[in-house]
Amino acid sequence: MASSIQYKIRPATEEDVPVLLSLVKKLAEYEKLSHEVTATSILFRENGFGKESYYKCLLADGGDKSQPRYFGFALYFFTFSTFKGKPTLYLEDLFVLPDFRGLGIGKSLLIRLAAIAREKKCGRMEWAVLDWNQSAIDFYKKIDAVPMDEWTVFRLDEKAIFRLAESPR
Amino acid sequence: MASSIQYKIRPATEEDVPVLLSLVKKLAEYEKLSHEVTATSILFRENGFGKESYYKCLLADGGDKSQPRYFGFALYFFTFSTFKGKPTLYLEDLFVLPDFRGLGIGKSLLIRLAAIAREKKCGRMEWAVLDWNQSAIDFYKKIDAVPMDEWTVFRLDEKAIFRLAESPR
Repeated sequence: MASSIQYKIRPATEEDVPVLLSLVKKLAEYEKLSHEVTATSILFRENGFGKESYYKCLLADGGDKSQPRYFGFALYFFTFSTFKGKPTLYLEDLFVLPDFRGLGIGKSLLIRLAAIAREKKCGRMEWAVLDWNQSAIDFYKKIDAVPMDEWTVFRLDEKAIFRLAESPR
Repeated sequence: MASSIQYKIRPATEEDVPVLLSLVKKLAEYEKLSHEVTATSILFRENGFGKESYYKCLLADGGDKSQPRYFGFALYFFTFSTFKGKPTLYLEDLFVLPDFRGLGIGKSLLIRLAAIAREKKCGRMEWAVLDWNQSAIDFYKKIDAVPMDEWTVFRLDEKAIFRLAESPR
């Protein structure tokens, strides 16, 4: 493992999509959720850089002008808090490649996200953490993040959405 | 309580903002979270119908052309699943006034949301539920929603965002 490292944090562009997807797959592997990944580069392009833009992404890039070199990423979007009346910066994924951990890259990504949230006048930043991921939980508590222990997220998958859409009123 | 009722589901417009905010406050009261509400009509207008549009809303309206009459609402927006590569319809608030429950209004709102999610090619619908709200949990399980028990949402409030944004990299 490197002991110190040069990199910049920059917004991802359409050209980064294939690498972004490979980083998402590495994250899924780490979370033991690879079986859930059905995303493709086409979908990532269409839904991030097409007519609609559902997400934004920061990359930690240690490369030079001729060649990017990816250490990690943060993918986010803006939601809305009805209690605050303000947008929330929601962090969908934060991931640093295992070989480059402990160098402050995750913290750098979070600091940049906080600056973006401040600029956009967000009332909150939020993200979900797997309950077994103790190192992540420790990291987030250090920056004063508060676990919303009394809430549970419910999910409908595509099939259930179709069934519900067709059900009698 | 009425035993049957006439109403339509329609998108909220800027004119509905004051009522929308009053419904949000009633929801907060029901959730015992009134102390968290700092939203104003100005913020709801700015962030829903201004330069940026962070949310969309459906209203259950039992009024006529001359006079709306509000029974409930569903406030939502689109997020993104990196594992699916598709948007998620995220339901921030679903609320039916206590006097008008048990008449299928909540279900009607959900059916309409599912139709919107299908049209937008969403891979998922998601929302958060308070763990003590058993009647809501029972209702959601009936439509095959799955609780994401292994995840916890972490939150930074505005002060923590400012602190993080200023912290050394």
